[in-house]
Amino acid sequence: MKRIGILTSGGDAAGMNASVRAIARSAMSAGLEAYGINYGFAGLVAGDIHKLESIDMDGIISRGGTVLYSARFPEFAEEKTQLKGIEQLKKFGIDALVVIGGDGSYHGAERLTQHGFNSIGMPGTIDNDIPGTDFTVGFDTAVSVALDALDRVNDTATSHQRTFIVEVMGRGAGDIALWAGIASDADAIVIPERDYDIEAIAEKIKQNRANGKDHNLVVLAEGVMSAAEFKEKLDKFGTLHTRAITLGHVQRGGSPTVRDRVLASRFGDFAVKLLLEGKGGLAIGIRDNKLVASDIIDTLENHKHITDVSLQDLNDRLRF
Amino acid sequence: MKRIGILTSGGDAAGMNASVRAIARSAMSAGLEAYGINYGFAGLVAGDIHKLESIDMDGIISRGGTVLYSARFPEFAEEKTQLKGIEQLKKFGIDALVVIGGDGSYHGAERLTQHGFNSIGMPGTIDNDIPGTDFTVGFDTAVSVALDALDRVNDTATSHQRTFIVEVMGRGAGDIALWAGIASDADAIVIPERDYDIEAIAEKIKQNRANGKDHNLVVLAEGVMSAAEFKEKLDKFGTLHTRAITLGHVQRGGSPTVRDRVLASRFGDFAVKLLLEGKGGLAIGIRDNKLVASDIIDTLENHKHITDVSLQDLNDRLRF
Amino acid sequence: MKRIGILTSGGDAAGMNASVRAIARSAMSAGLEAYGINYGFAGLVAGDIHKLESIDMDGIISRGGTVLYSARFPEFAEEKTQLKGIEQLKKFGIDALVVIGGDGSYHGAERLTQHGFNSIGMPGTIDNDIPGTDFTVGFDTAVSVALDALDRVNDTATSHQRTFIVEVMGRGAGDIALWAGIASDADAIVIPERDYDIEAIAEKIKQNRANGKDHNLVVLAEGVMSAAEFKEKLDKFGTLHTRAITLGHVQRGGSPTVRDRVLASRFGDFAVKLLLEGKGGLAIGIRDNKLVASDIIDTLENHKHITDVSLQDLNDRLRF
Amino acid sequence: MKRIGILTSGGDAAGMNASVRAIARSAMSAGLEAYGINYGFAGLVAGDIHKLESIDMDGIISRGGTVLYSARFPEFAEEKTQLKGIEQLKKFGIDALVVIGGDGSYHGAERLTQHGFNSIGMPGTIDNDIPGTDFTVGFDTAVSVALDALDRVNDTATSHQRTFIVEVMGRGAGDIALWAGIASDADAIVIPERDYDIEAIAEKIKQNRANGKDHNLVVLAEGVMSAAEFKEKLDKFGTLHTRAITLGHVQRGGSPTVRDRVLASRFGDFAVKLLLEGKGGLAIGIRDNKLVASDIIDTLENHKHITDVSLQDLNDRLRF
Repeated sequence: MKRIGILTSGGDAAGMNASVRAIARSAMSAGLEAYGINYGFAGLVAGDIHKLESIDMDGIISRGGTVLYSARFPEFAEEKTQLKGIEQLKKFGIDALVVIGGDGSYHGAERLTQHGFNSIGMPGTIDNDIPGTDFTVGFDTAVSVALDALDRVNDTATSHQRTFIVEVMGRGAGDIALWAGIASDADAIVIPERDYDIEAIAEKIKQNRANGKDHNLVVLAEGVMSAAEFKEKLDKFGTLHTRAITLGHVQRGGSPTVRDRVLASRFGDFAVKLLLEGKGGLAIGIRDNKLVASDIIDTLENHKHITDVSLQDLNDRLRF
Repeated sequence: MKRIGILTSGGDAAGMNASVRAIARSAMSAGLEAYGINYGFAGLVAGDIHKLESIDMDGIISRGGTVLYSARFPEFAEEKTQLKGIEQLKKFGIDALVVIGGDGSYHGAERLTQHGFNSIGMPGTIDNDIPGTDFTVGFDTAVSVALDALDRVNDTATSHQRTFIVEVMGRGAGDIALWAGIASDADAIVIPERDYDIEAIAEKIKQNRANGKDHNLVVLAEGVMSAAEFKEKLDKFGTLHTRAITLGHVQRGGSPTVRDRVLASRFGDFAVKLLLEGKGGLAIGIRDNKLVASDIIDTLENHKHITDVSLQDLNDRLRF
Repeated sequence: MKRIGILTSGGDAAGMNASVRAIARSAMSAGLEAYGINYGFAGLVAGDIHKLESIDMDGIISRGGTVLYSARFPEFAEEKTQLKGIEQLKKFGIDALVVIGGDGSYHGAERLTQHGFNSIGMPGTIDNDIPGTDFTVGFDTAVSVALDALDRVNDTATSHQRTFIVEVMGRGAGDIALWAGIASDADAIVIPERDYDIEAIAEKIKQNRANGKDHNLVVLAEGVMSAAEFKEKLDKFGTLHTRAITLGHVQRGGSPTVRDRVLASRFGDFAVKLLLEGKGGLAIGIRDNKLVASDIIDTLENHKHITDVSLQDLNDRLRF
Repeated sequence: MKRIGILTSGGDAAGMNASVRAIARSAMSAGLEAYGINYGFAGLVAGDIHKLESIDMDGIISRGGTVLYSARFPEFAEEKTQLKGIEQLKKFGIDALVVIGGDGSYHGAERLTQHGFNSIGMPGTIDNDIPGTDFTVGFDTAVSVALDALDRVNDTATSHQRTFIVEVMGRGAGDIALWAGIASDADAIVIPERDYDIEAIAEKIKQNRANGKDHNLVVLAEGVMSAAEFKEKLDKFGTLHTRAITLGHVQRGGSPTVRDRVLASRFGDFAVKLLLEGKGGLAIGIRDNKLVASDIIDTLENHKHITDVSLQDLNDRLRF
């Protein structure tokens, strides 16, 4: 083992740079070399690969986005493209690859592993929807950015006694909605993992209003429907002065939080440790506050992310 | 002069609370009483009026929204409603009224003045579109919030070499777009005060990209068109990997910036000073960094806000 | 069980309000009443106690400090004062007490429990130094505030090639220093749990500088020594352009992070659940990402907080 | 005129990078070349000079510190060193120099002008203490950072009914203290430009406390004395539960505010415009919201910065 390749893939997440830095620096500390691969699997196949120096990693821990760029590359589903990628890795003398990203990125790492090339998947996505880990790098920052907006919306809602319906990201998962909703004192949190009762939500808002609450908030996961659609449905149950907001892409970027920086640092260092021990074909995660690694093929094929839906019940108990 | 009434009206803006506090505290310092009127002109007519104590003003300088609430109230266009409002003011022994808000709010103050009730308009709107002042309270915070999002979007754009079209608020004025655009290194700023050449914008983006810039940004004022519409038009000129974002209501709220807090403090104190000097029927502003007051009727009927469109030229000279 | 008392004690921490809200709201959801006790144990003894309504809890989740105030009260070490406190609780018909705070606060709760009054300790301190839990409410916010300052200091250090020694809080624990140090790419982290080799630190800084790093940072836990003392020692090993900074009280306050708000919400709800089950005399915590409760007397007498010192080794592997 | 040199000098300020970018990009737009000089006048004399490309300026508008580094260089007071600097400028074919910095930096520019080398001083300092301008680049960000800390301190002060004495930067000027003090609802602002009456301050705090204010704040300019000294003096007038805080270096850095970015952009573009018109030997500023240029020698020798001390009176009227 002499050279580790690193790539970021899929939607960008805050902390991807912290992840790249951790892998590269930890590798260097162990006497290995680190190679950066630009534009994810597309750059891998194209051979857009360069040696990383420690100084290149300086200061990037605090920056959003990814210095290795990212790209969509559906062509990597084809075997011949995968083999072309492995060829490039061998050309650069790279012995193992760490892929930082979400679901799709993991599948790329899985395929390389199936072809015998040692690859590790590291969770980097805002959606927190990766099997094999309680938390992904980027999730804490995304929720923080969403909360910042929700705190501001609460201000405005107060001034006008409005009901804001705020759609947050998360793809098929309700994690961002649940955390952001609890933290922003939402009247209701609506997630794809559970049915919702719109009449009960309208009733709750009216009741809260009757009790003197002067602002109302529904946090809606994008996996359920759009804020505009939800508003339309809710408006049928009375005059709640609704406004629909979609937070959108602004949730992706930004300087990562402490949590995401430390988690990325731990993940990156752990990946290098595993590779040094001769292990591979793994998905890295944190479970019950401990670093874990599981077989990447088994993880992707037999497990799925479990959202902690009990947080919705918690919110119901803490609502006005 | 013994009692000053205060109301906030129209869309809320950060710094409205700082404005209320400044009027109330400055009035109290001069031995006057301050009365808060809830829900703008609607609350005025309904008599939703209460005495403000100094301690009520404690801590509100740092909060977004408005503790006096705000409301739309088109009925105030009718004379009999206006007279009803004056009746309420007299019932509470209020001698003069300060109205914090935007365009529409000023018209309310103007009408009361025309009926002989001494009223002062104080600029509180994120749009910066009030005649008689270079800056409104709320503008600096709104641009700051927008910039925060734009800095994050630049991170994401970098990772994917995307062109983001970000629609910011401002109603008919391009001020938010201009300031936020310059501050975020936008490739182009599109404002309602000037025609735009979409082909030239596409060309500029391509050229910047050819020169190595790995993210592109168009800041679009809502007064021109929506981000989605602009994206559609821009996409006709080639593959620029466009994404449309509408920042929306999150620009309104939030803890006011230093500028907005100090400006609100100066405006509020100035309004009280004018009333103590027996003046009224005025619109307050800051021009060339000096506090000014102009006749509110003349200001509304014969003047309009002039956006400093030369900022667009400045941005063109500073673009990549 | 009909009435739950709540008090905050010791140094304030972000998330104390979120904790109060969670206990009160969860209690109300279960049909109980919640009583707030002002100024910690001092207010308890003085009978400064009032019923909390749901609307009082509105909006406080986002605010730093504590709406119940806090106070030092060494007199509570005396038995007769403790009994006076219990008398007050009985007078108000309060059946159980939740104490939010750090070490000292826990001892108060322990003593009441020893006198037979059902009390629960809930971890609220920035220092993360409570036995029985991996994380305390307030820790994540304190580290975030520290990191914000460290990111800024890195900017300045870059401009002048300086070595900044930044002293962070934590009392006897190095947790804040470790997390903030990893997240800010510190050249060295110095904590009370481990000896430090100042010559090695100076050597590392020189070496990093020789390799092109243009800013240097030592994050120092206040439990070791002051920044000024450390600077003096470090200056003996050569011209490193050192500057000493003490972050101080600004680390305490501020709007709590998502983590702290959610953790506080979970803790508060859990405390109510335990009380409803007839349990008490407990210290609440989160261990391995699971809510846990341990005997408060045993926890305080036989356990102590274990700082994860392996984070220092991690930082050493990730340094430039 | 073909080549413009740029250097940053003295204490770093947020917005220095935005200034460098604006000069460089505006110069390039006019067909000129821009050269960056590292480490201020020290680098000038040493010939640490390099051509700037547009892409080097990409993204720096949002970063604190200065990409051109800064350094103290008292040797530049000697004529022979100044002539050596001019020699270097000529060697690189540089026709004019823009110096970004504070007082001391201006003197460097003044001396070069006296030797016949066309130099322009651009205000970049957090202290706002430059003659010839109402505002300097970096001031708005420094006050914003200070305010952020003061808002947090207000949270903590509330919890413990403490009086915080917070020392802010500003060298000999009270501008930061005045703006931050008004914006944070300080009980008193103490500045070097005016005498203070410590007994009256203590009296005011006691009175505010008697009226129910549960936190007290004195904002102190570093030019008066240290927070620790002030605390000692104040403690003689009774038990006010004082705590002294020195904000220190954290005020310098950080991502610049909108105001500072736009001001830097306008200044930089204006400097290039003046040079293109064949003008030079100037100090740039903004006065009454208009860009102005004044003779640099006259400005430094016959004018000084006037702090708007009326802001202290304003604060007195708005205090609790």
